[in-house]
Amino acid sequence: MEPKAASEALSYGLAGVDYDLIDPLKIAAQRAAASTGAHLVGHGFNEISASRGESAYVVDVGPFYVASIVECLGSKALVADEMTRLTGHSWYDGIAQDTIAMAINDLITVGATPLVVQAYWAAGGSEWFRDAKRAQALIDGWKRACDACAVAWGGGETPALAGIVADGRIDLAASCTGIVRPKSRLSLGDRLGPGNAIVLLASSGIHANGLSLARKLAERLPEGYLTPVGEGLTYGAALLAPTVLYSPVTEALAREGVAVHYSANITGHGWRKLLRHPKPLTYRILELPPVPPVLRFIQQQAGHDDRQAYGTLNMGAGFALFVAAEQAVRTTTIARALGVEAVVAGHVEAGPKQLVIEPLGVTYGSDDLRVR
Amino acid sequence: MEPKAASEALSYGLAGVDYDLIDPLKIAAQRAAASTGAHLVGHGFNEISASRGESAYVVDVGPFYVASIVECLGSKALVADEMTRLTGHSWYDGIAQDTIAMAINDLITVGATPLVVQAYWAAGGSEWFRDAKRAQALIDGWKRACDACAVAWGGGETPALAGIVADGRIDLAASCTGIVRPKSRLSLGDRLGPGNAIVLLASSGIHANGLSLARKLAERLPEGYLTPVGEGLTYGAALLAPTVLYSPVTEALAREGVAVHYSANITGHGWRKLLRHPKPLTYRILELPPVPPVLRFIQQQAGHDDRQAYGTLNMGAGFALFVAAEQAVRTTTIARALGVEAVVAGHVEAGPKQLVIEPLGVTYGSDDLRVR
Repeated sequence: MEPKAASEALSYGLAGVDYDLIDPLKIAAQRAAASTGAHLVGHGFNEISASRGESAYVVDVGPFYVASIVECLGSKALVADEMTRLTGHSWYDGIAQDTIAMAINDLITVGATPLVVQAYWAAGGSEWFRDAKRAQALIDGWKRACDACAVAWGGGETPALAGIVADGRIDLAASCTGIVRPKSRLSLGDRLGPGNAIVLLASSGIHANGLSLARKLAERLPEGYLTPVGEGLTYGAALLAPTVLYSPVTEALAREGVAVHYSANITGHGWRKLLRHPKPLTYRILELPPVPPVLRFIQQQAGHDDRQAYGTLNMGAGFALFVAAEQAVRTTTIARALGVEAVVAGHVEAGPKQLVIEPLGVTYGSDDLRVR
Repeated sequence: MEPKAASEALSYGLAGVDYDLIDPLKIAAQRAAASTGAHLVGHGFNEISASRGESAYVVDVGPFYVASIVECLGSKALVADEMTRLTGHSWYDGIAQDTIAMAINDLITVGATPLVVQAYWAAGGSEWFRDAKRAQALIDGWKRACDACAVAWGGGETPALAGIVADGRIDLAASCTGIVRPKSRLSLGDRLGPGNAIVLLASSGIHANGLSLARKLAERLPEGYLTPVGEGLTYGAALLAPTVLYSPVTEALAREGVAVHYSANITGHGWRKLLRHPKPLTYRILELPPVPPVLRFIQQQAGHDDRQAYGTLNMGAGFALFVAAEQAVRTTTIARALGVEAVVAGHVEAGPKQLVIEPLGVTYGSDDLRVR
């Protein structure tokens, strides 16, 4: 394909994901799914209906809550494949961590301790597994991520799906089951309100959202994935920095008695995810975390203004914690002790539903995020 | 492709799945996974290590066990796509049931009550969702299967994965979380032993295993999927009979006080799955369930003898229950009351690890199944 002029702004639609086509299906599926929640009553249990529309589904089983989820990696493996072609190195250890992070970082938003991860590795054919180095990297990375999150790798599926998964590719996903214990850890936003502090945990780069855009951009660069983006890294290597696993932080906060009122995993839709909770509240950001060079590079190359960039990418903030103001600094201290940079970025106010990023002069309203 | 002579026997390898390539990866993954089980101790829980190598992973969380799993449909959707082209009808309601059955029927083997299903629908692009009739059939079938199993549909992922999932295709999987309660329902085979009866529950056809073989065969048939196979059905329509959901049976057995000592979901490897448990025991089959016409047709067209056919396909038995001899007839009565045909097919004996199918003169030894 002819590389486009770097000055032409890239929208998400141009980059190959058409949310208008997916959303009506999503809404119909959500409606059908919601109607099945009552089945739990027959088993003596109850769904926590407030968890519908949140990042993980929660069931009250008596002594504690059970949370579960399935999440996919997305298209990041395509970058790994191309970088393997260019560098000879296998990047699948990081890809494994990305996949687990997609599931774990969503599961913990409801206050759950992840207990069991299941692996879903669907290859385009048995041939995929012939590259023993790559397969072993996937296994090693998967195990290391489980170790980092103190989660048991229960098992999984490794189907060869010729004709469904593209030849030479692999579709990676993870399911995760956890518990919320004690029940007071449930963080669906009941306690979210004016005065709460917003603590942002640092990302390592693009994580696994915005890769369609990032890949499209690589096509325009004369040196492609080998373009330097600073810090001695190529564009491809910087994109492949593994997603931060945030469950060590949320588990440490629980141990130290810090109550998380709500949290948001900042993935697709970038910072607009801060508007996730249905309550009408204003989120005011006064301080920004540093932007990883690869994200600044994407913003510049894609010709995005700050409003587009922060509404699409994580721009340095991979996870948001909403805590009582007096626990904000302690939250950052606990995160930093685990090697995760953190900043008290702002606070929650009474007011219309909006996110105001003061240092950038950018505001997103309630119409800017539709995830329910 | 030139259709091959129908007399040439089709092996599973020929039909496109090379288990030799997948198995070394599986073994390395299983070893790495097993080493992560100890993490649960840090959370005050324990893995049930006997569940490793079984169809679902089980954790002791105190008052009950939690079981979890992720399972994929496999290549059955390719048959649905081709039949849609030939008939104009959308077959995705049945495909949805197949996908859920893959997860539910595995989860219940450990004695679990399925509680929550998550949907994993990864399409080859947003375009997949443009066919609203097909998308709605998928949603309707998914909901109906959840209703039939009294399970809550918690949510899921509907990514558009252009470049990973093939254009126009969808990769379908389901994760499922359940509990074993009371703990005495755990059926990992402790009580499996000589004298136990083997009750086989009827399948509806091929279910979702052996489809690579079935699809290869369609290429050889002059009328392809439209070839009549009896009972007024075409080959394609018969293949697309949805997989039986067995959890209503296992839940009814628990309510009625029938203790299941062990069970086996008969999927890949056909009846060899009866050898799944590691104990050295002889399984003697004296009575066979009726063979669905489509499976007899595949056997004949593929040129398989009984040993090959019963070692590959379910041949009319979708699920095996091992119960005390005195509860065998009651087990069949309870299943039949729910519309699932059942037969007391044989019994367990002391002796070397083997499955003896007396009416066919076929024996499989312990070397014929390696799933651990």
